Amino acid sequence: MSDYHIEGQRFDTSLGWVQETQYAFFEALDLDSGLVLSPVTIAYETYGRLNEARDNAVLILHALSGDAHVAGYHRGDSRPGWWDMMVGPGKAFDTNKYFVICSNVIGGCKGSSGPCSLNPETNEPYGLRFPVVTLPDMVRAQKMLVGLLGIERLLGVCGGSMGGMQALQWVTAYPEMVASCIPIACTHKHSPMQIAFNEVGRQAIMRDRNWRGGDYYDAEAPDTGLTIARMIGHVTYLSDESMRDKFGRRLRGKEVFGFDFESIDFEVESYLKHQGEVFTRRFDANSYLYITKALDYFDLSNGQGTLVQAFADTLPETRFLVIAFSSDWLYPPYQSKDIVRALKGNGLDCTYLEIKASYGHDSFLVEKEQLTLLIKSFLEVTARRNGVKVAG
Amino acid sequence: MSDYHIEGQRFDTSLGWVQETQYAFFEALDLDSGLVLSPVTIAYETYGRLNEARDNAVLILHALSGDAHVAGYHRGDSRPGWWDMMVGPGKAFDTNKYFVICSNVIGGCKGSSGPCSLNPETNEPYGLRFPVVTLPDMVRAQKMLVGLLGIERLLGVCGGSMGGMQALQWVTAYPEMVASCIPIACTHKHSPMQIAFNEVGRQAIMRDRNWRGGDYYDAEAPDTGLTIARMIGHVTYLSDESMRDKFGRRLRGKEVFGFDFESIDFEVESYLKHQGEVFTRRFDANSYLYITKALDYFDLSNGQGTLVQAFADTLPETRFLVIAFSSDWLYPPYQSKDIVRALKGNGLDCTYLEIKASYGHDSFLVEKEQLTLLIKSFLEVTARRNGVKVAG
Repeated sequence: MSDYHIEGQRFDTSLGWVQETQYAFFEALDLDSGLVLSPVTIAYETYGRLNEARDNAVLILHALSGDAHVAGYHRGDSRPGWWDMMVGPGKAFDTNKYFVICSNVIGGCKGSSGPCSLNPETNEPYGLRFPVVTLPDMVRAQKMLVGLLGIERLLGVCGGSMGGMQALQWVTAYPEMVASCIPIACTHKHSPMQIAFNEVGRQAIMRDRNWRGGDYYDAEAPDTGLTIARMIGHVTYLSDESMRDKFGRRLRGKEVFGFDFESIDFEVESYLKHQGEVFTRRFDANSYLYITKALDYFDLSNGQGTLVQAFADTLPETRFLVIAFSSDWLYPPYQSKDIVRALKGNGLDCTYLEIKASYGHDSFLVEKEQLTLLIKSFLEVTARRNGVKVAG
Repeated sequence: MSDYHIEGQRFDTSLGWVQETQYAFFEALDLDSGLVLSPVTIAYETYGRLNEARDNAVLILHALSGDAHVAGYHRGDSRPGWWDMMVGPGKAFDTNKYFVICSNVIGGCKGSSGPCSLNPETNEPYGLRFPVVTLPDMVRAQKMLVGLLGIERLLGVCGGSMGGMQALQWVTAYPEMVASCIPIACTHKHSPMQIAFNEVGRQAIMRDRNWRGGDYYDAEAPDTGLTIARMIGHVTYLSDESMRDKFGRRLRGKEVFGFDFESIDFEVESYLKHQGEVFTRRFDANSYLYITKALDYFDLSNGQGTLVQAFADTLPETRFLVIAFSSDWLYPPYQSKDIVRALKGNGLDCTYLEIKASYGHDSFLVEKEQLTLLIKSFLEVTARRNGVKVAG
């Protein structure tokens, strides 16, 4: 990992603070499969300032469809990053105090190396020639980035859903590099139901004629399959209760049973169609395959030994804040409790909270007040216990 | 409804009892839309013998993908009808005592008139020119069949899922014709989540290029879309727990992370793929659209008044047995409890049971012992109270 350089920079304009994605380049990344990905690009963003001791950094990990742009506005954007409610001056991840990093996962399509990147051997997009990547591979790439930024130990790793699974992987793979870990609405391994929903999405993509074995980059993309996959995802991200609150059985623009099957009857149908279709403009179908497979394969205990043993090397001073949501039926609270049980089985310092929330799995993107309350003080105590000097 | 005749007959062979589907033909059926379906074919099967008083008939209603073949074997079949565990001599619906009827719904593809039937105006399959049908339309067609069989009052109407919704429609539309009602694992109207899952399935079908606006009968069928729709269905029919018991995270035939995305890794993936693919051999995609729309539109109170008011005309002597399953998250027990509350609000005779079962929505096709225990005695008491003479 000798050759690298950093591109891009952040700057203020007369319009205010503008966030920019930066890119780090590495020669190679060793993968779990035994293959080597080379070269490697990692897209990332940073917020706030790294202190002199370089010990106030918090790494935020994104979920399936997320990216490095966790907060703030890109030039010209009307909507901020995906967790803007949590990251910024005075917010839970207070950028006046902490240096926040977020990077796009390897295998993704938001700037980091993935199946839509150019394969240097052919000068064409990889497609399925991109090597299979695992969650541990994604985390190994993040470790290179963190090292490049001159950080030896992170004050915290935090994420929801797949981000939480990566946070757990961080603490078990590199225990000495993590002072605290906040896994939210996640699991240490997917249940067959989680695998099943992902698999239906993958089948929808792979059975789309436009998929062509993954080589569609110079032609029509498998938008139909990706739309269906995303629609399935969105149903699982919500809850029965939140959908009743949000849509009820309201009919859209007509009051009688329609005869045209392509028309929209219920508001919930319109919502799903919209969510599915806009997703194709911002996401790559092959990345959807790679990342969901990485999720389904992930097993924190590596299929060997118990979950308790997975945390055997965790340092006793590491702090954990495990959060689940009552209405999350995709990553149900029992999965978070399994993690807590394993942490406690190692005598580790762990706080568990099941937040009463009606938004299902999406609650981690919605429940600003409760998450802020919990995370803000957790990070402050962690900083204090670790003698980290933060401004403010 | 003047012209009709009955075709088909049942017979015993040296191989034992063999069940055959019969067909009833009607001139016309008035539909909720104001249109008239003409002519009308209804596929049905009967089991046991109608007594002299013609008052021992029980009508069983099938679910989304079911048909008239509820029990026994068709000639040459290796598998019996879809609820064979419940219907037969000595079983819950004891064919030594009761005359059991089951018919395929209008809009279906198992012998009754539906979008794959020939449109008499064009002599080609209807496709989307088949009129929209509702659950009340399906029940109105069943009423014609019951009348044709010379039955004025049914001892019971019973079904699971969509079948339960039809049973409820029967008792509210034709209260004087029903002595008892057994709605299982159902609801009086779909929640937005139920609509959402159906809608994703419909979108998968309608976005399949082979769908061609429903006119695919002389070409390749939209098998991809129908396969995806069925896979989504199957995930929702199971429960997290039953999937863990059934599949765990077992890998299929290999122990390492595969590189071929078309291959199967987990057993649950193989199960879903199989279920999705075999479905295309026995079901018509247009029927899937019509029937799921009928389900989503169904509202027992017709959107007017409360659910309590929907049962206002129900006869006080009508008996109800409402059954839900603890792990059914597609038709959760709270939906059955809403029905019970409305029945009790009318002072009606209602027994409610939430069966502890791990199979999710599919429990109604699995929980033989518990269902038999409940239904057998419920029917016996109903027969006794109504002075119905049954053999045995």
